[in-house]
Amino acid sequence: MKMNELLGFRFKETPADCQIASHILLLRGGYIKNVGNGLFSLFPPGKRIVQKIEQIIREEMDAIGGQEVMLPVAMPASLWRESGRYDTIGSELLRFQDRTDADMVLGMTHEEAVVHLARDAAQSYTNYPFMVYQIQTKFRDEPRARGGLIRCREFTMKDAYSFHTSQQDLETYYEKCYAAYARIFARCGLNDVISVQSDSGMMGGKIAHEFMLVTDVGEDYLAICQACDFRSNMEVAPCIVENQANTAAEIKKVHTPGTKTIEVLCDFLNIEAKQTCKAVLYQKDADDGLIAVFIRGDLEVNEIKLRNHLGEEIHPAGNVDDVFTCGFIGPLGLPQDVTVLFDNSLNGETNLVTGANETDYHITGFCVQRDVADVAFCDIAKILDGGICPNCNKPAVMLKRGIEVGNIFQLGTKYSQAMGMTYLDQNGKVQVPIMGCYGIGVGRLLASVCEESHDDYGPIWPVAIAPWQVQICALRADDPAVGAATNELYAALQANGIEVLLDDRKVSAGFMFSDADLMGVPVRVIISPKNLARGVVELKTRNKSVSCDIELDNAASEIAALVQKLRAQ
Amino acid sequence: MKMNELLGFRFKETPADCQIASHILLLRGGYIKNVGNGLFSLFPPGKRIVQKIEQIIREEMDAIGGQEVMLPVAMPASLWRESGRYDTIGSELLRFQDRTDADMVLGMTHEEAVVHLARDAAQSYTNYPFMVYQIQTKFRDEPRARGGLIRCREFTMKDAYSFHTSQQDLETYYEKCYAAYARIFARCGLNDVISVQSDSGMMGGKIAHEFMLVTDVGEDYLAICQACDFRSNMEVAPCIVENQANTAAEIKKVHTPGTKTIEVLCDFLNIEAKQTCKAVLYQKDADDGLIAVFIRGDLEVNEIKLRNHLGEEIHPAGNVDDVFTCGFIGPLGLPQDVTVLFDNSLNGETNLVTGANETDYHITGFCVQRDVADVAFCDIAKILDGGICPNCNKPAVMLKRGIEVGNIFQLGTKYSQAMGMTYLDQNGKVQVPIMGCYGIGVGRLLASVCEESHDDYGPIWPVAIAPWQVQICALRADDPAVGAATNELYAALQANGIEVLLDDRKVSAGFMFSDADLMGVPVRVIISPKNLARGVVELKTRNKSVSCDIELDNAASEIAALVQKLRAQ
Repeated sequence: MKMNELLGFRFKETPADCQIASHILLLRGGYIKNVGNGLFSLFPPGKRIVQKIEQIIREEMDAIGGQEVMLPVAMPASLWRESGRYDTIGSELLRFQDRTDADMVLGMTHEEAVVHLARDAAQSYTNYPFMVYQIQTKFRDEPRARGGLIRCREFTMKDAYSFHTSQQDLETYYEKCYAAYARIFARCGLNDVISVQSDSGMMGGKIAHEFMLVTDVGEDYLAICQACDFRSNMEVAPCIVENQANTAAEIKKVHTPGTKTIEVLCDFLNIEAKQTCKAVLYQKDADDGLIAVFIRGDLEVNEIKLRNHLGEEIHPAGNVDDVFTCGFIGPLGLPQDVTVLFDNSLNGETNLVTGANETDYHITGFCVQRDVADVAFCDIAKILDGGICPNCNKPAVMLKRGIEVGNIFQLGTKYSQAMGMTYLDQNGKVQVPIMGCYGIGVGRLLASVCEESHDDYGPIWPVAIAPWQVQICALRADDPAVGAATNELYAALQANGIEVLLDDRKVSAGFMFSDADLMGVPVRVIISPKNLARGVVELKTRNKSVSCDIELDNAASEIAALVQKLRAQ
Repeated sequence: MKMNELLGFRFKETPADCQIASHILLLRGGYIKNVGNGLFSLFPPGKRIVQKIEQIIREEMDAIGGQEVMLPVAMPASLWRESGRYDTIGSELLRFQDRTDADMVLGMTHEEAVVHLARDAAQSYTNYPFMVYQIQTKFRDEPRARGGLIRCREFTMKDAYSFHTSQQDLETYYEKCYAAYARIFARCGLNDVISVQSDSGMMGGKIAHEFMLVTDVGEDYLAICQACDFRSNMEVAPCIVENQANTAAEIKKVHTPGTKTIEVLCDFLNIEAKQTCKAVLYQKDADDGLIAVFIRGDLEVNEIKLRNHLGEEIHPAGNVDDVFTCGFIGPLGLPQDVTVLFDNSLNGETNLVTGANETDYHITGFCVQRDVADVAFCDIAKILDGGICPNCNKPAVMLKRGIEVGNIFQLGTKYSQAMGMTYLDQNGKVQVPIMGCYGIGVGRLLASVCEESHDDYGPIWPVAIAPWQVQICALRADDPAVGAATNELYAALQANGIEVLLDDRKVSAGFMFSDADLMGVPVRVIISPKNLARGVVELKTRNKSVSCDIELDNAASEIAALVQKLRAQ
């Protein structure tokens, strides 16, 4: 490919509204173009990288017995009604009507479609296990599309689905897929990927892992134990706190005028936040039913854990001044028909300050076990940085941020059961297959590689997914010697199966090199009159690990050897 | 791949509501599954064929300098408003609102998106010409989805777009693309493809060709001259008829009670249909304005030509009894503000019967040039089988039916102009690029190959796109000799880079062979205890051109040679 024929353009300025490196560099380098909110077109270099990532994914999925299929992007709502998700998923599921006013959806995930495909085709235990996958466009009407390819509304995803006759068989396959994922990320050149326990969310099922690129710009928070191998998405990490060594005191109502927040209250009483029991209010999505969560004042509610505990969707409470004395809410004397929950952090605490359910009054000496009848505790607090590891009990939890580059779920029978997928087992008995599902966002993976591997001047593409392996920068290509050497090397490398980007434009060396930095091609060859006069060309890698002159006569074979070496790394 | 692991199932019965062979066989063979009206999932064999077709298309597009890109499926309506098509395209364009109530569309074609991608990137004449393409999901809300993959609502399409600085450059490239299309169809094993002139329809532009698979089940009609190389979609073929040798007669009003149709009228007057001048009524989509087309009674109106003549969308008239004396309409004494058109077939005719615009009366001796002031004729009749060729004037037109497997359009500046895409020419002057566009429906191409190449028992896949090149049918694989020979051959062929489908299920030979017929794999090897006792295996091609025994010892190399030979054909 010649640079002057390549569609796209590169620029120096940081585009508006871009915060993260991959978004900035993919725009600046002519890889992507924004078409609308969370919608992107790919220029040829972006598409080339995507295809290489897809091929790696395809090879690894095939290697664990995957069969590639194709499921529709647009689906009848009836399929999603069968699973129940048409009603349970919020507005991120794009619903529309076709010309006959039939309800349709755009696929954001394809459990329903794959069960529809497989349910007639796998009616005997002899058909199991199997895994099918697709690499296909998805649409998720994200409320907060951002970060370029990190969080789009339309995106390409590899989604795989496995079907099993036993939980044990699923678990065995889950491990295989886990290993395949590790290989995929490694082959794409991503190094800082860890797997963490995760929430299965709207997917259903119990066991789930996310593969996270650890990076400061990630939007997920990860709890990582520095003393053992505990790794979890903060969303589902159990929060363990030690009791304070307080002695029990009498309950006393105290006048605390204007102390509507924990901060003001603590100032007023000269206590620490952890000496309080605070209320956090939610409502159920289904019927707006009120929920009061009581939690130690130094902790925050983890809404994912709260949702999972309740088994239904919730949202922060709206205006509830007619029900509660907001700012002074406590567990004693609350209105009926409020769902009241106590976080584990209150378990065993003896001398706390909490609201009196009366304006400008709190109570002191509160001890939940003593003062509340039949109290039960649950785990709904966010884990803290430096907190206690729920696995090894050491105070060694570190919070990091990460980008989710893949996820794997043990779905169980949620979809097969709901959609009537069955098979006959060896004894002729009707059974429901157990499913797993496995996703990787292709565009997000591309952007994640860019996040991990770039400098101020552009992406540094790993050779396995680079749009080209070699870029020739021909300075003064109008010089006959440069022109001849360039064309010969260009042809020789291509004949060797190497993908080459040739820049022989009449531009300055500085301009050409800054464009080359943005193209991020791993190996760069510079041909100039000055070099040729010495019989050499300049060889550099984009990551600066190599920078030397090589003889023109051996250039093709030396470059091929370098590419080979990079590929093997 | 082993047959017992392959997801899918095959069956003998013709599925309900299937008329054409490809639809029936793709369902029966486990290639596709219907998900909804015009929506299909692909089982692994279908996906494998699709990928091979896509790869052929990709290679040929790359060979003519194409750069692969990716444009979104879901697009903001604003893009389509820029081109004007948001308002001009009917309900086949799927419009919807996202969660923010923003108007969106699902792409049925991507002229708008590609101009959006390219317009900032090609602002100098030095960037031209270029061609970009994608292979991507499209959605067209077809009123009449049918024929399986022949006419879906969601489909995968290769759409390419070229940009030029002169009409001549476009024409040169158009020829290149034309040749690439011929190669694509030939490489996919389609033989009966011809190109015809076509209507550019909603795409805009003037010159357009369709590539048609000639087949009795096609839904397009083609006018093909047997005396010259004239080939046209009937939609745009000029209709040429010779005048009848009538002598002019006086206009006379005659009583023709109850003769509301041409047939009844001709019976009543004992004349032929071609001796009449009939009226056909339409209305404009925009304002329901009435159109009366007069045409010789033996011909029919070609609505595409009518639409093109008027330059706007039209539909057959509804109930217009309040305006017309239906059944007795003639050109004389029509209400004002009706658009009146006369087809060429009336030009020069002298003695026709037409309506008197009065119930139960016609007039005879009608001569349009004599009797209508300032008459102008236009070409809006359908060409007839056996009709006169508009190119060589011989009465050698043959009508055939075809499936459109590809199309190419010279778009001109319709989109670039409307969407403000410009470049600076060599003189620094602002110019608007000229575009071409080039489409191939991948699924339809797959189905078309099946239409052309099948027998009663299943598809006969050409080796280049077959899901596997070789199928091994191991009869009695539980026999140790059969098992050993099978596994060895399976491994040897795969080591040779051949894709093999191995059927070693414990099923009867008849069952296995009818499944194999449905899989359509070009080369079949049958291993059985009986054959092995003679030291041979049976080698057959799906198209029956080869059927012989080969020695087991040489089987792998002989089979590889046969595959090689089929590939070279």
